[in-house]
Amino acid sequence: MAKQLTAKRRTENEIEFGRIVAFSDGVFAIAITLLVLNLEIAKGLTEGQIDNALWDQREDFIAYAISFAVIGRFWLVHHRFFSEVEAFDGRLLGLNLAYLGFIVLIPFSSELLGEYGGKTTAVVFYSANLAIVVLLGLLMGADARRRGLTSTDDRTHRENRVRSAYIAGIFLLSIPFAYFAPAIAPYLWLVLFLDPSRRLSGRRSAGDEEGDGPPRL
Amino acid sequence: MAKQLTAKRRTENEIEFGRIVAFSDGVFAIAITLLVLNLEIAKGLTEGQIDNALWDQREDFIAYAISFAVIGRFWLVHHRFFSEVEAFDGRLLGLNLAYLGFIVLIPFSSELLGEYGGKTTAVVFYSANLAIVVLLGLLMGADARRRGLTSTDDRTHRENRVRSAYIAGIFLLSIPFAYFAPAIAPYLWLVLFLDPSRRLSGRRSAGDEEGDGPPRL
Amino acid sequence: MAKQLTAKRRTENEIEFGRIVAFSDGVFAIAITLLVLNLEIAKGLTEGQIDNALWDQREDFIAYAISFAVIGRFWLVHHRFFSEVEAFDGRLLGLNLAYLGFIVLIPFSSELLGEYGGKTTAVVFYSANLAIVVLLGLLMGADARRRGLTSTDDRTHRENRVRSAYIAGIFLLSIPFAYFAPAIAPYLWLVLFLDPSRRLSGRRSAGDEEGDGPPRL
Amino acid sequence: MAKQLTAKRRTENEIEFGRIVAFSDGVFAIAITLLVLNLEIAKGLTEGQIDNALWDQREDFIAYAISFAVIGRFWLVHHRFFSEVEAFDGRLLGLNLAYLGFIVLIPFSSELLGEYGGKTTAVVFYSANLAIVVLLGLLMGADARRRGLTSTDDRTHRENRVRSAYIAGIFLLSIPFAYFAPAIAPYLWLVLFLDPSRRLSGRRSAGDEEGDGPPRL
Repeated sequence: MAKQLTAKRRTENEIEFGRIVAFSDGVFAIAITLLVLNLEIAKGLTEGQIDNALWDQREDFIAYAISFAVIGRFWLVHHRFFSEVEAFDGRLLGLNLAYLGFIVLIPFSSELLGEYGGKTTAVVFYSANLAIVVLLGLLMGADARRRGLTSTDDRTHRENRVRSAYIAGIFLLSIPFAYFAPAIAPYLWLVLFLDPSRRLSGRRSAGDEEGDGPPRL
Repeated sequence: MAKQLTAKRRTENEIEFGRIVAFSDGVFAIAITLLVLNLEIAKGLTEGQIDNALWDQREDFIAYAISFAVIGRFWLVHHRFFSEVEAFDGRLLGLNLAYLGFIVLIPFSSELLGEYGGKTTAVVFYSANLAIVVLLGLLMGADARRRGLTSTDDRTHRENRVRSAYIAGIFLLSIPFAYFAPAIAPYLWLVLFLDPSRRLSGRRSAGDEEGDGPPRL
Repeated sequence: MAKQLTAKRRTENEIEFGRIVAFSDGVFAIAITLLVLNLEIAKGLTEGQIDNALWDQREDFIAYAISFAVIGRFWLVHHRFFSEVEAFDGRLLGLNLAYLGFIVLIPFSSELLGEYGGKTTAVVFYSANLAIVVLLGLLMGADARRRGLTSTDDRTHRENRVRSAYIAGIFLLSIPFAYFAPAIAPYLWLVLFLDPSRRLSGRRSAGDEEGDGPPRL
Repeated sequence: MAKQLTAKRRTENEIEFGRIVAFSDGVFAIAITLLVLNLEIAKGLTEGQIDNALWDQREDFIAYAISFAVIGRFWLVHHRFFSEVEAFDGRLLGLNLAYLGFIVLIPFSSELLGEYGGKTTAVVFYSANLAIVVLLGLLMGADARRRGLTSTDDRTHRENRVRSAYIAGIFLLSIPFAYFAPAIAPYLWLVLFLDPSRRLSGRRSAGDEEGDGPPRL
């Protein structure tokens, strides 16, 4: 009620709305680009040592690729969500900031994963970070919808909820798993390539901008 | 007078105005994202050492969270202020640059706070940095208003002034405090969660885009 | 078919399209600026040591200049390509992300090249990185065109294809070359300054925004 | 002639033009923010050592302040120049990229100046970097004007030329000066606060967006 009264309509505040989106995009763009700083090469190596140094970083390259795809994926989801936002207020902005706070943490979690991929702590930290991002996204979406700030239709909303719960579930599940078999836990993430939400809803929505692209995070 | 003659109207210079805002947003977005570079993990640690290394960084994580919230908060305030700017001139741009210069310093102050949270110098440096940001924001707002560059109404302006003075006061107060009890001084900042401006003005303004979000900085 | 049905028209989704472009521009701008982090100066040097330290970094400065020009060039090409995109879908966004993933890798490849310019591994890594960017750009362009997402005319498309194949070819050719004469292989890149696409098409297209600028990458 | 035929009008290519400006703004924003990375604090210091470490960095703080003001100033000039650009082609984009290449170098030059402020090499390097930026800006402006790409009137153009030549002159002059008295050469830059262009033109132009702001660089 009172909340909706204080929300600003997007159509009447295009510039302000644009700034929120541009700020979020900037944060995503910087976070995704900072991933490259996790790759490094020492000075003064011989020919053979260079090859070894690169080979020793193979897990860092894998972590770079995974995290680049993950942040890119979250950006697409964020992008799609905000394209359906029709009004915004302080709470949405606050939740968005909290969400971005965990996006920005990903380069650190990724450094940890690249350095200590087979260790429990690294897997747990990385999984927890991503799960929190997904859950905050879910919360932000549900909250905005409940307060009438978005134009998402029921079906899309249900699909989003199922998908987010599924993804967060996988990451959360890989946490206890990491205590027993840390080296294997990351493989659990491959299950993410199966996307149950399509099967559940039994169709491809017309407004679906994804096509046959990579699986949704 | 002469000043207002040389100021450019926002409506006639949308692109130029957009660039100022976009540049500022870019600086905020980068400064907030650079905070993650204060978190680091050494190479070649054993399982137990990783846990210790993360635990030893607990103050860095707290500093990250505080500074992320602080910069995000300043961005919201900046965002709200510029949404009411209707004309701009060299002085506003100059003050905005000085303001941004202290925003960009926050990742360094935050590194200091994360590393030496219980030490006088770190608390003083961090408090001074934030107090200067608030005071420069206050100056920028008052100056722009005095010269007719903004559309802020009297009540909002008074509220902003009270709030800024209150926040700057807390930070400035924590400086002498830090000389006697550096480990406790940061707790003083919790008083910021009490927002006297609402009580003072006795209402929630209709144009208030904040809702029940986090307390204003 | 089905693909085109799910693609979003740019004209009906200007804000969303703008975000994709802005995100890409942000990534390009950050990647190009991070190049400067490959330049460093040690602390506590004497006057003569400073000069030596800078002189020892001459290859880093060259790598900085080359990579700045290269990323700038890729940005221009990306810029030109997206100015002809008229609709977008998940596949285009996915390919664009993969493309950006290799753009962001350039600061690392450039660090490697600056540090170990005369070594086989560095030349191979750098060449492969750039060749992959060109090939992904080619793929993105051809795929978008095939699915009717761009307005590129036949002649321009053919020119782009020839040019991209030419550039990718040079980089790929310099890889085996680097195994025999790593110190000389980079000179092969100078051939890039000859642009066969103009000769092939025998004209300067009217819509050519390049003029007599630097050679196209 | 032919050049103007291939130039794109800004009014017909607002989005493309906007991307060029946004990309440039992004580079400026990142370069100015990276300056903070030149400030660092070692780990594990005692209370007194922290104070010493900060005090030892006083020249780094000064270099930070100078370079922040300098990059901010260049951004304002770039901003003003592009607000008068009415058409663009490959040559303008190429010159703009070269210009940005030396803007991005400033954080490195600034690190050098902060570390070795009283040493010849550092002063020469910094002065040369800034002089090149000013000269490239002058070249870009003169070239764009000669080819009819800007709407700058004669008087403003003459003022800009005089001002740029003046500033570049000061920086170039401080180079030989640095060989005899490196510790004093930076004070020469204070002459920049005298702005001869106003005196020369004998008026304050009406379109002057600067007001009584800080002196122009």
